[in-house]
Amino acid sequence: MIDVTAEIDDYLHRLFPLCRSLTGEPNRKTLRIIQEIVPLSIHEVSSGTEIYDWVVPDEWTVRDACIVNSRGIRVVDFKNNNLHLMSYSVPIHSTMCWDELRSHIHKHDQLPDAIPYRTSYYQRDWGFCVTGAQYEELANETEPLTVRIDTDLKKGSLSYGEYLLPGVSNQEILISCYICHPSMANDSLSGVLLTAFLARELTKSKNRKWSYRFIFVPETIGAITYCAMNEAAMKKIDVGLVVTTVGGPGAYGYKQSFEKMHPINKLIEEVFNESKLTFVTYPFDIHGSDERQYSSQGFRINTATISRDRYYEYSFYHTSLDNLLFVSASRINSTLSLYWQLVRKLESRCIYRNRVPFCEVMLSRHDLYPATGGAQRPNNKCESDLDLVLWLLHYCDGKEDIATIARRLETPLKSLEPTLELLVAKNILEQV
Amino acid sequence: MIDVTAEIDDYLHRLFPLCRSLTGEPNRKTLRIIQEIVPLSIHEVSSGTEIYDWVVPDEWTVRDACIVNSRGIRVVDFKNNNLHLMSYSVPIHSTMCWDELRSHIHKHDQLPDAIPYRTSYYQRDWGFCVTGAQYEELANETEPLTVRIDTDLKKGSLSYGEYLLPGVSNQEILISCYICHPSMANDSLSGVLLTAFLARELTKSKNRKWSYRFIFVPETIGAITYCAMNEAAMKKIDVGLVVTTVGGPGAYGYKQSFEKMHPINKLIEEVFNESKLTFVTYPFDIHGSDERQYSSQGFRINTATISRDRYYEYSFYHTSLDNLLFVSASRINSTLSLYWQLVRKLESRCIYRNRVPFCEVMLSRHDLYPATGGAQRPNNKCESDLDLVLWLLHYCDGKEDIATIARRLETPLKSLEPTLELLVAKNILEQV
Amino acid sequence: MIDVTAEIDDYLHRLFPLCRSLTGEPNRKTLRIIQEIVPLSIHEVSSGTEIYDWVVPDEWTVRDACIVNSRGIRVVDFKNNNLHLMSYSVPIHSTMCWDELRSHIHKHDQLPDAIPYRTSYYQRDWGFCVTGAQYEELANETEPLTVRIDTDLKKGSLSYGEYLLPGVSNQEILISCYICHPSMANDSLSGVLLTAFLARELTKSKNRKWSYRFIFVPETIGAITYCAMNEAAMKKIDVGLVVTTVGGPGAYGYKQSFEKMHPINKLIEEVFNESKLTFVTYPFDIHGSDERQYSSQGFRINTATISRDRYYEYSFYHTSLDNLLFVSASRINSTLSLYWQLVRKLESRCIYRNRVPFCEVMLSRHDLYPATGGAQRPNNKCESDLDLVLWLLHYCDGKEDIATIARRLETPLKSLEPTLELLVAKNILEQV
Repeated sequence: MIDVTAEIDDYLHRLFPLCRSLTGEPNRKTLRIIQEIVPLSIHEVSSGTEIYDWVVPDEWTVRDACIVNSRGIRVVDFKNNNLHLMSYSVPIHSTMCWDELRSHIHKHDQLPDAIPYRTSYYQRDWGFCVTGAQYEELANETEPLTVRIDTDLKKGSLSYGEYLLPGVSNQEILISCYICHPSMANDSLSGVLLTAFLARELTKSKNRKWSYRFIFVPETIGAITYCAMNEAAMKKIDVGLVVTTVGGPGAYGYKQSFEKMHPINKLIEEVFNESKLTFVTYPFDIHGSDERQYSSQGFRINTATISRDRYYEYSFYHTSLDNLLFVSASRINSTLSLYWQLVRKLESRCIYRNRVPFCEVMLSRHDLYPATGGAQRPNNKCESDLDLVLWLLHYCDGKEDIATIARRLETPLKSLEPTLELLVAKNILEQV
Repeated sequence: MIDVTAEIDDYLHRLFPLCRSLTGEPNRKTLRIIQEIVPLSIHEVSSGTEIYDWVVPDEWTVRDACIVNSRGIRVVDFKNNNLHLMSYSVPIHSTMCWDELRSHIHKHDQLPDAIPYRTSYYQRDWGFCVTGAQYEELANETEPLTVRIDTDLKKGSLSYGEYLLPGVSNQEILISCYICHPSMANDSLSGVLLTAFLARELTKSKNRKWSYRFIFVPETIGAITYCAMNEAAMKKIDVGLVVTTVGGPGAYGYKQSFEKMHPINKLIEEVFNESKLTFVTYPFDIHGSDERQYSSQGFRINTATISRDRYYEYSFYHTSLDNLLFVSASRINSTLSLYWQLVRKLESRCIYRNRVPFCEVMLSRHDLYPATGGAQRPNNKCESDLDLVLWLLHYCDGKEDIATIARRLETPLKSLEPTLELLVAKNILEQV
Repeated sequence: MIDVTAEIDDYLHRLFPLCRSLTGEPNRKTLRIIQEIVPLSIHEVSSGTEIYDWVVPDEWTVRDACIVNSRGIRVVDFKNNNLHLMSYSVPIHSTMCWDELRSHIHKHDQLPDAIPYRTSYYQRDWGFCVTGAQYEELANETEPLTVRIDTDLKKGSLSYGEYLLPGVSNQEILISCYICHPSMANDSLSGVLLTAFLARELTKSKNRKWSYRFIFVPETIGAITYCAMNEAAMKKIDVGLVVTTVGGPGAYGYKQSFEKMHPINKLIEEVFNESKLTFVTYPFDIHGSDERQYSSQGFRINTATISRDRYYEYSFYHTSLDNLLFVSASRINSTLSLYWQLVRKLESRCIYRNRVPFCEVMLSRHDLYPATGGAQRPNNKCESDLDLVLWLLHYCDGKEDIATIARRLETPLKSLEPTLELLVAKNILEQV
């Protein structure tokens, strides 16, 4: 696929400043910008809607937030960095001394220059997140400090984007990213852009085998809402990808789906190996991102993630240092090309059925056999096309995945493709 | 549980002298004495009843048995030790010389002081079992000897005891002991008393999860009769214990059920290990006690046995030296405490179902999640309660046993209990 | 079994000269000669019959074929060796120069003295197969050469032989050989004769457990035709043998059936090992002989082959040097004795069901238990008959093969036989 680094870079700069959260106008604005890349539909689910064990929260709007010292100086200002305000902070306008304020101030223990990222989605609270220097400055104030948070928390809606891309088969692959993080670049903006460009690329490809369900949701509550709204469709999905933290300078890695032996995990390893990339394997963990929902008992979608500087693993995780200096568009583009390879592998993943299950097909009738017999001494390995034809007809029983058959034959999946196409063209194999 | 050594000791002395066999009044008397401990019901099955491949035998009654020499001295006397008479001996009153008598006299090859235990349940015969000294004395008699066996073998019944202890679940655990051995203490009296006190202790415990089926049967024919009389119920049982030879001075051991990997075997090993006891592992063997019946194709109940000086293994096995000098009440009490630990483990063995199978539960709503988000970096191991909550919700699908889940999580079952209780209390998990 | 070397030698000499092919009078003659050994029925299937993906070809008749030089000398003459004529050559009578003729002339690249074997069954063509010397002679002819092939290709039938040998069980074992090769001795005449004598030997044996389906078919199209004509019966078969190339001077070997762990493969290895023969193991391969048809999805019969100088593997394969100097009757007789051992092993392979699945059988009632009880200390190993009885009753559930049970018991299958017979005689076990 073509290099889209420049486009990604442009969108990174446009989307980075928006103060996304679970809900709100910046989320909708993010989705509308993504619509420039791929024609997703935007859905709204009202606050208060009951969703399984959850309730869609009120919509959060921020106009301003700051801590002003007695000399009128904004020591901490939301306008400088939207991470300064704890997400979902309730409004307050009050003057208080440091001792009272302190429990609402969050700083990072290891990174004095970083503003940490904090949220209080489901417990009404307020807070500020500051650098080490700001913390010192506030702590050294002997005069009272004025705290002003000009936010709304009221009935509104949760927004998500959805893009359904039909293929020849109506069997779907889920590709999900989350749009709820404010100004951080690796987590999760990099994943949002990768997903959008992956969707655009797939839209271009002709003869897609599978259908694709791309979703852009706030993490957790958004994914849960989406599951509930699309329960029947989601239950039918076997394999998914959660795209996040794909643009850091660190190590490639992938998180396995809950069934270690599921083909998706093997395919990802093939992608890395064929690209000669070293990578970290993260076994399935109950923590993580929205694969938690998709892997739950009701859905059990085998969901994996390819990442670069995976969430939890890099020191700038959930801080203001996860910014455009840390993430580069070209690295997002590189990871995109891995996802693209994976999608191509998924596209070549399919199940064939030998239409002549009883005895052999008459190979010569189908121009698959030399006319003069008697001479050849077939070899036990899959060296010739004829061998491949015979082995494929032996194994393609309408149940076993062709990738699994390739492994049985100790042959790269890719090398099977011409023969599979030939046999389908000759109406000997058919796809299930 | 409390120490019941003194009570066991008392019952040992009362029950030891009775001449139990497959049938007869001493068996009924034994069951009636056991009724003092636990309110079992006593059932009678008539002689001649056809049971699978078997027929319930006639009832055997002994009034007297002796060998008297020409000087009127009782060289061998049933009144001294009921092992002197081969079980199920037919009546005889006859005078014969040693050469004729000899084939009816059994002695122990290795233990000259012991009276061996012999039976002839299904072939009408008679015999005496004697010490080495008695054998010499009889063999040296030049005058004829008078043999007198005053027994009855006639239509009557086979008696067994049954005690059904209901629990929250109607899934049953089988606990079986055998009541057919005359004056021997380890085999089987120790097991009968252990079973009775275990039943009493379980009766006291509130909120039993499982139902328990305690049975006191003559070995083999009694167990077979019981199976036939309760075929439907027995077919539904998954796990059982045969309690026997639990009071010797030798090594602890356990006989595995026929499926080596069945949880019952793991649980028993846990009991030994947690008690820091060394133990012998006896793999499932087609010989043994009533697990032979319960393991048969029609039932396939995984039945194990914890023992101390297991049958077959100790030199006094099936002799008069398996007596109250060999067995102590305090050792029976110690083995009882192991069974009690096992039962507690079985009680903590259970199956939970996540009541919110679709997506995650909203942990914060249930006070299971910190109110302020964004900071934590969850760990892949089950270190925190939060992790445990998430993994339990992932795996508890209403099918898999919690002990198996504990093994998946590489965590002691015990450590799961508080979290399981918490999740049940919060109505997130429910027991199946 | 008795040595049949002399008989085999006689039939080798009678059958070798016939110009067998897919169809034709020499095939019928071959089958009629085999009828002297075993009373097979001969079936005819008309040319043009549609069979799965195939059509039964026209019948081929050869009267004469030669290449005559300008001096009237037959440089190549079918009457000298029927391999000179490519099988299924269409008639031609024409004079042409070498340049025109050359593309119809086949020689062997490695063996100048050999006439190679060539066929053109499904593409109408003609050809001659020649030695290196003949090729040179033809190539050096400057005058035109006269080609004369006096053959017919017209509606007729495909012939096959079938011999059904009933056993106690109607479960069948398939034994198949192919009758379509002209004058070659190892491939396939040796297999045809071995099959016939194996069938004769089996006919003699009393109390055959299994039924046997012997078939003598032209390779590929004949096997496919047979499958289609007997589809229901063939679907029920679990195990088969394809007998071919059994008389060379080279190495013994066997080709595994498609399921490597299937008992047939283990049994063959046992035969070799017990005979202290080294052997080559050929893993299942999609190439080969009629096991290709029997292994296809519609049938999945685990079909193996014991051979000596297996097809593909010896240098004289598919040439005139695969003749009666290469193959000896005594070696065919030796391989026959291996097949015979294998058949005996298959005969001892069977499945038993305990007729008393609930609890134990009453051993003493069946004279399987000592009358006086109490003394014995059973051993965990299968040392005594009593142990064997008990373990067999435990495992024989009507599903598991007795060979598998023998492996579970770590006992040679042979050692189980007396006990199995005893238990069947006593009506405790029954064969499925």
